[in-house]
Amino acid sequence: MGLERKRCWVESANDPATDFPLENLPFGVFESDDLRRIGLAIGDRILDLHACEKAGLLGNLLSSQGLHALAGDGPAQPPPLRRVAVELLSEGSHRPQVEPLLISQRDVRMLPPFRIGDYTDFYASIHHATNVGRLFRPDNPLLPNYKWVPIGYHGRASSIVVSGAEIRRPCGQTKAPDAPEPAFGPSRMLDYELEMGFFVAEPNAPGHPIPIDLAEDHIFGLCLVNDWSARDIQSWEYQPLGPFLAKSFATTISPWVVTLDALEPFRVPAAPRPDGDPAPLPYLFSERDQQRGAFDIHLEVSLLTAKMRAAGEAPFRISRGNLRDLYWTPAQMLAHHASNGCNLRPGDLLATGTVSGAAPDSVGCLLERTRRGAEPLQLPNGEQRRFLDDGDEVILHGWCERDGFPRIGFGECRGVLVPPWQPGND
Amino acid sequence: MGLERKRCWVESANDPATDFPLENLPFGVFESDDLRRIGLAIGDRILDLHACEKAGLLGNLLSSQGLHALAGDGPAQPPPLRRVAVELLSEGSHRPQVEPLLISQRDVRMLPPFRIGDYTDFYASIHHATNVGRLFRPDNPLLPNYKWVPIGYHGRASSIVVSGAEIRRPCGQTKAPDAPEPAFGPSRMLDYELEMGFFVAEPNAPGHPIPIDLAEDHIFGLCLVNDWSARDIQSWEYQPLGPFLAKSFATTISPWVVTLDALEPFRVPAAPRPDGDPAPLPYLFSERDQQRGAFDIHLEVSLLTAKMRAAGEAPFRISRGNLRDLYWTPAQMLAHHASNGCNLRPGDLLATGTVSGAAPDSVGCLLERTRRGAEPLQLPNGEQRRFLDDGDEVILHGWCERDGFPRIGFGECRGVLVPPWQPGND
Repeated sequence: MGLERKRCWVESANDPATDFPLENLPFGVFESDDLRRIGLAIGDRILDLHACEKAGLLGNLLSSQGLHALAGDGPAQPPPLRRVAVELLSEGSHRPQVEPLLISQRDVRMLPPFRIGDYTDFYASIHHATNVGRLFRPDNPLLPNYKWVPIGYHGRASSIVVSGAEIRRPCGQTKAPDAPEPAFGPSRMLDYELEMGFFVAEPNAPGHPIPIDLAEDHIFGLCLVNDWSARDIQSWEYQPLGPFLAKSFATTISPWVVTLDALEPFRVPAAPRPDGDPAPLPYLFSERDQQRGAFDIHLEVSLLTAKMRAAGEAPFRISRGNLRDLYWTPAQMLAHHASNGCNLRPGDLLATGTVSGAAPDSVGCLLERTRRGAEPLQLPNGEQRRFLDDGDEVILHGWCERDGFPRIGFGECRGVLVPPWQPGND
Repeated sequence: MGLERKRCWVESANDPATDFPLENLPFGVFESDDLRRIGLAIGDRILDLHACEKAGLLGNLLSSQGLHALAGDGPAQPPPLRRVAVELLSEGSHRPQVEPLLISQRDVRMLPPFRIGDYTDFYASIHHATNVGRLFRPDNPLLPNYKWVPIGYHGRASSIVVSGAEIRRPCGQTKAPDAPEPAFGPSRMLDYELEMGFFVAEPNAPGHPIPIDLAEDHIFGLCLVNDWSARDIQSWEYQPLGPFLAKSFATTISPWVVTLDALEPFRVPAAPRPDGDPAPLPYLFSERDQQRGAFDIHLEVSLLTAKMRAAGEAPFRISRGNLRDLYWTPAQMLAHHASNGCNLRPGDLLATGTVSGAAPDSVGCLLERTRRGAEPLQLPNGEQRRFLDDGDEVILHGWCERDGFPRIGFGECRGVLVPPWQPGND
């Protein structure tokens, strides 16, 4: 495990309900005094690593070692900077010096954790692919390549925002099945997608693939992702080159990146493949990855409508799932991505695609949940949703739990929909 | 026109065959003495703008005005820095001071002109879309959305390289139609795609569309693009999310960006739409853009095989086309891209997709030219090509010509194919 259980002198980090105990210490970037700073979340506070460095507490770990000082260097090995941070936050003797370097999470603005060069979105949930395919091809929902190829596509990096940013409803071309012509206007089928993403730490050289057994060494850590999708724009534009404007208006990520070493206790075998499914091709197969390459991460989607907000009601949980249900592991997705020699760069984001489970209440988007609007979602206050309304706030949560281990959480990934842009409205 | 015809004291710039007369002055970035420097191409030399600034010749134009000092600020208006450069290179009185600041193009390594945040590839040639569609759907080659939507998809930014970089043949999953299962190995259907790209100068705010009449103000300039494509990987992977690893291994661009003001004399009306085609929707329609939003740019693809190179033969021209044949103008592509509020950033690259004309020898890729390998291309030395072989070098050229105006060229966009990576081969 690498880390022994220690008590943290930041009291909120010892709360069993916190997402951020001493064993998590996820990495994030925040703005404070107009400066961009790197920090680790601990309880309800942030340890400001730049301040720690300035105080002489980190040696040169922050400035000289790049991402590997923060992320793990190979499976299960907590990196030097994180080991030092555990000491600083657990040994009472450090408290007088370190406590002034903590900042309340409420007092800062979080920024994207990396300058994301390229964003790739996969389609790794076979339940999602089957549910969506069934809406369009009832007799043949899964395409023939699905069980062989970790299907993915390039997403839009510029419009990735962190939790809390308002999401403007996009306009676009849509065409109703019975309309003679398309029309341009606000999307009327706006959806969320519950996903997780993983950031690249180590690059590969252009032209050099990454063997499946080394793939995890290139992963910095994981975050929550909401890949907002305009279903009506998507269905009209997506052939033959895939989703484009239906998704490029915004993608929300949670600001804290949980490293692989923090997730070590929550590794599980890859989801078993149903009888008759092909084995992964050799470049996607590793015994080790099959045995421990998936992660047992609970996921939840909650919805807070404008009416619920006005009434002071709490968000309503509309689905729950688990990352372990994916058909492909993160290592398989990354090895596939680099298998043609495509160079991955530090800070690139690879997301899983919508995470859906087999149960009806474990699907990760409204398209599946309401069967493209045919079966509206009933909310406790009497409201219905086929798709999202302006004022709706979507909140994703993710966490790991296991007897004998502290909860490791991902914080929140939230965004509220605002009306489409019009000349003069901002 | 803005610029009067002046004689340049750099003699090679007055050669009627040069791509880079005084009226062009394309922008590029090069490496010299391990430093990244900005320059303007003039004849066979480069005017080093950093050296000019250091010598006090540019005022603060380079450092203080960002891209708009280099690109045009609105149609037809040569920007201040380019006006100053014209003076420096035409007035003999400047020659003693400026001549030492010129560098031979042969002596430097060109770099990508921008840090490309996002790369988008369109599908704007209706001839290409029809030819490719016909290979898969003989009776119904064009999909119903084509004449309404400037179809595009997100490409991979990390693997964009400048002219001259070797291109490693990618490996990937492919499945022959009669094979029971896919296999992983080197692509055997490697193709080039003749395209042009345009760089974004001014950003738009997230959520704010760009009106079609203002779209060109956001364009810095144009370059040549070769969007290398592995057709066998593409046909197996592309459903339902579009091309991914078939194209993400490499995209080659020409290093010199020709600004819109240099292209002003070569504007032409948008290609006429055949009778019965719908008019563009209002957000894609502007009278001005229809009248002068296309560009008369001649394009050529040449091939130099290893055997031709060994025999000292010249590259063989395998096709020629023209950018004016596109179904959508650059302004329409850009306005569409931002129509959902997607934020474009300075340095983003938008490419046209394969530029094909109506004539058989004006198609922009081998997939079309050889009808997916069914009709091999015959080379003068007796060689044949269905797709590209290792050692083949593909060379794109583009230029404008018109009576009474100097030739405005784009230089070269070339790349040679090398064998796939294997453990130990580099």
